[in-house]
Amino acid sequence: MGLRTGDEYRKGLNDDRRVFYRGRQVDDVVGEPELAMAVDHSAICFDIAADRPDLAVADVDGEEVSAFYVAPKSADDLVRRGALIEEVSRRGGGTIVLKEVGSDAMFALLRATEGEGLENAREFYRRVCRDDLALAVAQTDVKGDRSLAPRQQADPDLYLHIVDEDTDSITVRGAKCHTSFSANADELIVLPTRAMGPDDADYAVSFAIPIDTPGLNLYVSPYAAGDRNSFEFPISSKHKLLESLTVFDDVRVPKDRVFLNRRSELAGPLALAFVDYHRFTAINYKLPLLDIMVGAASLIADANGISKAGHVKGKLTELITWSETVRGLAQLSAVRSRPGEHGVQQPDPLAVNMAKYHFAHGFHNAVAILTDLSGGLLATGPGGEDWDNPEIRAVLEKYYAAAVPAEKRLKLLNFIADLTARDYGGYQSVLATHAEGSLEAEKLQISRSFDPTRARSYVSGLAAIDAL
Amino acid sequence: MGLRTGDEYRKGLNDDRRVFYRGRQVDDVVGEPELAMAVDHSAICFDIAADRPDLAVADVDGEEVSAFYVAPKSADDLVRRGALIEEVSRRGGGTIVLKEVGSDAMFALLRATEGEGLENAREFYRRVCRDDLALAVAQTDVKGDRSLAPRQQADPDLYLHIVDEDTDSITVRGAKCHTSFSANADELIVLPTRAMGPDDADYAVSFAIPIDTPGLNLYVSPYAAGDRNSFEFPISSKHKLLESLTVFDDVRVPKDRVFLNRRSELAGPLALAFVDYHRFTAINYKLPLLDIMVGAASLIADANGISKAGHVKGKLTELITWSETVRGLAQLSAVRSRPGEHGVQQPDPLAVNMAKYHFAHGFHNAVAILTDLSGGLLATGPGGEDWDNPEIRAVLEKYYAAAVPAEKRLKLLNFIADLTARDYGGYQSVLATHAEGSLEAEKLQISRSFDPTRARSYVSGLAAIDAL
Amino acid sequence: MGLRTGDEYRKGLNDDRRVFYRGRQVDDVVGEPELAMAVDHSAICFDIAADRPDLAVADVDGEEVSAFYVAPKSADDLVRRGALIEEVSRRGGGTIVLKEVGSDAMFALLRATEGEGLENAREFYRRVCRDDLALAVAQTDVKGDRSLAPRQQADPDLYLHIVDEDTDSITVRGAKCHTSFSANADELIVLPTRAMGPDDADYAVSFAIPIDTPGLNLYVSPYAAGDRNSFEFPISSKHKLLESLTVFDDVRVPKDRVFLNRRSELAGPLALAFVDYHRFTAINYKLPLLDIMVGAASLIADANGISKAGHVKGKLTELITWSETVRGLAQLSAVRSRPGEHGVQQPDPLAVNMAKYHFAHGFHNAVAILTDLSGGLLATGPGGEDWDNPEIRAVLEKYYAAAVPAEKRLKLLNFIADLTARDYGGYQSVLATHAEGSLEAEKLQISRSFDPTRARSYVSGLAAIDAL
Amino acid sequence: MGLRTGDEYRKGLNDDRRVFYRGRQVDDVVGEPELAMAVDHSAICFDIAADRPDLAVADVDGEEVSAFYVAPKSADDLVRRGALIEEVSRRGGGTIVLKEVGSDAMFALLRATEGEGLENAREFYRRVCRDDLALAVAQTDVKGDRSLAPRQQADPDLYLHIVDEDTDSITVRGAKCHTSFSANADELIVLPTRAMGPDDADYAVSFAIPIDTPGLNLYVSPYAAGDRNSFEFPISSKHKLLESLTVFDDVRVPKDRVFLNRRSELAGPLALAFVDYHRFTAINYKLPLLDIMVGAASLIADANGISKAGHVKGKLTELITWSETVRGLAQLSAVRSRPGEHGVQQPDPLAVNMAKYHFAHGFHNAVAILTDLSGGLLATGPGGEDWDNPEIRAVLEKYYAAAVPAEKRLKLLNFIADLTARDYGGYQSVLATHAEGSLEAEKLQISRSFDPTRARSYVSGLAAIDAL
Repeated sequence: MGLRTGDEYRKGLNDDRRVFYRGRQVDDVVGEPELAMAVDHSAICFDIAADRPDLAVADVDGEEVSAFYVAPKSADDLVRRGALIEEVSRRGGGTIVLKEVGSDAMFALLRATEGEGLENAREFYRRVCRDDLALAVAQTDVKGDRSLAPRQQADPDLYLHIVDEDTDSITVRGAKCHTSFSANADELIVLPTRAMGPDDADYAVSFAIPIDTPGLNLYVSPYAAGDRNSFEFPISSKHKLLESLTVFDDVRVPKDRVFLNRRSELAGPLALAFVDYHRFTAINYKLPLLDIMVGAASLIADANGISKAGHVKGKLTELITWSETVRGLAQLSAVRSRPGEHGVQQPDPLAVNMAKYHFAHGFHNAVAILTDLSGGLLATGPGGEDWDNPEIRAVLEKYYAAAVPAEKRLKLLNFIADLTARDYGGYQSVLATHAEGSLEAEKLQISRSFDPTRARSYVSGLAAIDAL
Repeated sequence: MGLRTGDEYRKGLNDDRRVFYRGRQVDDVVGEPELAMAVDHSAICFDIAADRPDLAVADVDGEEVSAFYVAPKSADDLVRRGALIEEVSRRGGGTIVLKEVGSDAMFALLRATEGEGLENAREFYRRVCRDDLALAVAQTDVKGDRSLAPRQQADPDLYLHIVDEDTDSITVRGAKCHTSFSANADELIVLPTRAMGPDDADYAVSFAIPIDTPGLNLYVSPYAAGDRNSFEFPISSKHKLLESLTVFDDVRVPKDRVFLNRRSELAGPLALAFVDYHRFTAINYKLPLLDIMVGAASLIADANGISKAGHVKGKLTELITWSETVRGLAQLSAVRSRPGEHGVQQPDPLAVNMAKYHFAHGFHNAVAILTDLSGGLLATGPGGEDWDNPEIRAVLEKYYAAAVPAEKRLKLLNFIADLTARDYGGYQSVLATHAEGSLEAEKLQISRSFDPTRARSYVSGLAAIDAL
Repeated sequence: MGLRTGDEYRKGLNDDRRVFYRGRQVDDVVGEPELAMAVDHSAICFDIAADRPDLAVADVDGEEVSAFYVAPKSADDLVRRGALIEEVSRRGGGTIVLKEVGSDAMFALLRATEGEGLENAREFYRRVCRDDLALAVAQTDVKGDRSLAPRQQADPDLYLHIVDEDTDSITVRGAKCHTSFSANADELIVLPTRAMGPDDADYAVSFAIPIDTPGLNLYVSPYAAGDRNSFEFPISSKHKLLESLTVFDDVRVPKDRVFLNRRSELAGPLALAFVDYHRFTAINYKLPLLDIMVGAASLIADANGISKAGHVKGKLTELITWSETVRGLAQLSAVRSRPGEHGVQQPDPLAVNMAKYHFAHGFHNAVAILTDLSGGLLATGPGGEDWDNPEIRAVLEKYYAAAVPAEKRLKLLNFIADLTARDYGGYQSVLATHAEGSLEAEKLQISRSFDPTRARSYVSGLAAIDAL
Repeated sequence: MGLRTGDEYRKGLNDDRRVFYRGRQVDDVVGEPELAMAVDHSAICFDIAADRPDLAVADVDGEEVSAFYVAPKSADDLVRRGALIEEVSRRGGGTIVLKEVGSDAMFALLRATEGEGLENAREFYRRVCRDDLALAVAQTDVKGDRSLAPRQQADPDLYLHIVDEDTDSITVRGAKCHTSFSANADELIVLPTRAMGPDDADYAVSFAIPIDTPGLNLYVSPYAAGDRNSFEFPISSKHKLLESLTVFDDVRVPKDRVFLNRRSELAGPLALAFVDYHRFTAINYKLPLLDIMVGAASLIADANGISKAGHVKGKLTELITWSETVRGLAQLSAVRSRPGEHGVQQPDPLAVNMAKYHFAHGFHNAVAILTDLSGGLLATGPGGEDWDNPEIRAVLEKYYAAAVPAEKRLKLLNFIADLTARDYGGYQSVLATHAEGSLEAEKLQISRSFDPTRARSYVSGLAAIDAL
């Protein structure tokens, strides 16, 4: 079939999917302006194939395949993948676009499943490549009481689980949350969220289904909904992600689409394998966002005429160090990568998680610095309707001039406000903290990925003690 | 005349003021729903007189006066003032209400002006007390290029200045920004923004005028504009401040309303005297906001079922220490206060500015902690329209139950999102950084308020050196 | 008997005490130069009675009593106590002197014991006041495996416990560590270290004994031992504390000296009551140390000629804010104090522990700042023997001159090195982290001392939910 | 001549050098026990040639040359150099050994000098390689008043300068400080410390001379002097560096040993070129020190039985992240290296300086964590003389047992105390802050090494403004 264009992708979304948005069911996601913005955003990962085939198109056995879907076999493959992820994020205003997440899930399936599940995963993978499908991934369960295992929850459906099985299919019930792209993807890959014991075998399930599969209902969050003019909302009037509460109301899944069927011992490894790739994706798609924060800080300091102040220089250097540390560790995670199971290359988990740690732990401080350098006008400045009124604009032009004309300064301030001080900024802040793993999850992976033997035995030797 | 009710205050706003909002002139601020919300918010400081006269009403020479307007003469007066400011902020959702700022300015005028200006200030003060007026304060100039003095700016109007004077009046031109409450106050006090030299004498000006004075034009910021339902926006659907770009288009001011007329040597002291009171106000009105952050963190940790985790306890303690350090230093700033000029009590500037420093430097970290404890649903949760649809609500109730029913959890999450992750949260973040003085301004005042003699001479003695 | 002089205190130390230091038993602590320095340091708290009777001497029922030993009955009493503790610390180079700790223990005994134990405590208290005794306090057990309760330890002696009892006495065995002043006190008060259950009743023991009681052996730490000249070690050549491993080798204690005898339910309250006073002592005796750090930073910045640099100003302000926050919260802990059991005033535990938290969490950063401002000469500068050689001194005077003559600069640098970069500095750093409670202990007390009800119910109201 | 052994190196130090230590001139540095320890430490970089020729010996044009002295031509060369530096530091207890610094200087000279200076540098380089010489580097001038240029100082000698010149030689006067290894090297390379203007041409001077050159006087710092037993000082009883005040008392330098003679425009580039290599050295030789801190923390947590506590895990992860971030950026600085002038490879300055920044800014926090996990025994524990007394040792063995026997625990604690809480720890702390560039110097280089164009133009595009 070959690679699809953005428009072909858009057309493919017109089916019987059940998407709910702002309290009602949506007929056609492409026809609903707020959702269409998200579709346009995701179309970037299709359109780039025409625009930058060197980066976005790969030749696999003589066929053109989206470069997103090339399972990495080497450090160089990961370097190229990182560059592609960074480039689409750059076009997407500093955010993930779509194909990243589905390919992360496919690589995990190719590495961490076994037997029939692995065969199904490989077949699914071939089909996705061939048809250039858009995939969403549902991993995070709604979880209920976090101190209890899946089967111990008051309501057994709080983790997705198998409620029935016959020769040809399994039937699943439950809900996943924070599912990005579900409303504007072609298919949905479901992954387990954590390690599970034998008693939780019903919850150890992974599969893929078309979005319009009966029983699948998507409740899309209205976060950052509403009309937004490009003066006040230069980023969020153009870029948007859709996240859903994804409800499986006794959804029947054919067995040849099942990758994990009650093999609880594989649930944890599969969940972690996805994390390997998805955090690698994260630290690469965040790079343009880091550039945005550094660039915006540098520009607004100039616009406000404060670039020469010692404290301003210090704050800019702090931002640069933060940003470039993440970039450096992201690069390193590819350089240090190693072959994983079934020959799929694994980014270095220590470097990946440290990059993510620095990004996430430093994000709010970076926002604080940007806020500090920008000034109070972030929250007391004029709006698009003011700017559109010529008489008011004349006043604004006179009084908001600084080291640059008022228009540039106000546009920069609105850009920064959109990014740090309004709902889209809040969205980014929540993503920085929780998306692709929480702060504690990253810390846990750092601890697990680090082998203390070298350090401990060195100290034991110097301190003249045997190993403890 | 006696103390006014909230409704009397509302009626008083119906005059010829020129208020611009979202691109057009507003006929009646009370009649415009979005502005009326701000009026209602400010009315709290009138309505409290009936509700809590012990706290809000004072007897001055046999007359009932708003307790806000009692010039403090003792540490106890400041303790009482702090309690009143905290209480109206508590009613106002954790934000300043209105009368605080005008009284701060009046105390500054009573302390830092001299001669005829002081007489005018005292007469104005008597009138404000008698008529229970609502005052806004315009201090921050638009400033233009920050490395240049007022008279050096390309456009001489970038700092407010005197352009004409006759026997009875002065005429001023320029603009102030970040002017809170201007659109819903009765009068406007104008203060200089910084110390000035003799060459900038035209810029050393302070006065008070009714809001509907000809030539005064208010361009109100549309920040956090728009309809908002109480499910998604539990705070910001009820509370709002208005900030304006305040333009003085050759405004004529009668001389008996002028408090500072070209006496540049008084500009700095007057600006700083206002800061003394206004930061004292700040650290007291922020106390309910601090309680909000601590209380919300404590509740959401319970709701998510994670209160027992070691890292969660540690984060809660971090929040408590931050919040209670500010509260402790706020209390101390009154306890350590001392008589200022003309017998007006001055809060201890070291304690005031350290309280502000801790608040402002810790705010973004507190937001990060709240975000961390709340989880990703802050940004991917359902909206009011979803909740209002009974079929969708049933799904939400099933799947968002945790250690508490879904309704409580979602309400808490929306409360926290309103506070930290949407436009109102951004507004609070900008205020934390810039309102009542920037981070650098507080650091400067800490440095100025601290006498290093004790520490330096102690060290000189111990190190056996004479003073450097 | 009346108050004793420093010399009378010194004479009282000549008894049969068994003190071990640097591998051998010491005959006479006053005759051993390194130990005598510690005796001189502690003598400050006796000599101040003659020098500053206004501060250090109280009239109790017509008798002169050391003001250290006045059990506080009011906030003012605590303010005065704070001032006394600060003053002796100032004379002691920024460190605790001696009488603070014994009086802390006595106040705890007067508040938290009951029945016969309380009677014994009161009688003991009267004798201490009358004879102006020097008291050490042994609280911290050696503890062994920290995850086990006292009775569960492999060796039952790892917590001090009662091994025998007859009509007139109990016999105890075990060891306490970190016991300050034991080698140069008259008597030793023993307190339990933590809450205990009924099964650990043998470990719930408190009493007081003379230091020369048979079976009591003190193993004094050699930390910071050795000759030290005053050029390189301006503080630590004059001031020193002694800490011991305090071993109770079947020590018999007469019953009238026992304050707690197996009443396990009182062990925790008694331990915490001591903590109340001892951390109050801590935050007051640290104030001169804070002044030292601020003063030294200010002076060395001048001496190096870098005071005008923006980053230097910022670092000085950071130090000031740290230091004065501790000072402010220390003051507040007295202002907010309240009556405890049996009428003994209790400092506000929230303010006390927050002051300690800020001190301890900020200490290493303060050291980093001082190190940064001082320069590498801290570790590569000349020594006392160099300075004493006239030919070498001439070279040093020529080449180490900066914005001040070389002598002043080098003395300041050595002062700072003694404080931050040599063994005495390390001692201060360990004390900052562990003395009077670890970082985690302070966090626990902050959490326990804070009542979240106000904050939680305020948020519940605003978020329109009932209490969770 | 071939590579020398450690003993050959020792013999070479017996000459007429004028070394002053602790107030008197030293006849023979190898015969003076405290200095001999430093010689032994530096001998590591000779002895490794026999032990690990794969790492430490290179074949250059058929001759064996110390691998330290191989001028890097590729990223791989720098990776190898990093590994060698790390290995000798590992043998040296976590500290630089000797040959690193001289080779850093030679690479700088080969890159940043020109004309006759470059020819002399190349000739000098050949001789150093051939004779396997030990080189010290004197760069930092004593500087005097830091706000003044070299020629503006009250005493013109505060920066090293040329006072005379004839056909064959120049004569220099002044002093350098913080000169490591000078007392135990064969020769001394002198480099300028900063950029200079034409008016400071006399100060733009670089050359190399034998240590026993007439007029060269070394005043070695007594830091961490004195006998130290291996029980209390397991690291610092074995490893030591010597730093000197290095005085040039009209030293005559033959012209063929002069690399920079008044060409002020080359002073800055030469100083910075040295910094490129020397900070690369720094971040590699610090790696074992980082391992020490991580390993010691991990071991002491086990020994104290607290490894399972949540806050302990969190602190260990914080240490790991700090340590491995430095390691990662160190690796990256080689991976990203590029050819410099004259074909000498240049490590990536952004990665180098960020690694140094993370190391230096995190060091004091790491010390705080180690102190926290170790407990107060760091400062109140027993000494070597106690341990050597069998009766006392029996007491210590009984009472200091924890989750491991007392001996292991005490050895670990002393190891950590030596590293963090005694004079050697202070030395490391000062080095962390100042050696190879101060905190501000690293920040400046980060700022200079970062090209903001990408970030700024990206933001300009998104915000729809032209470049400012």
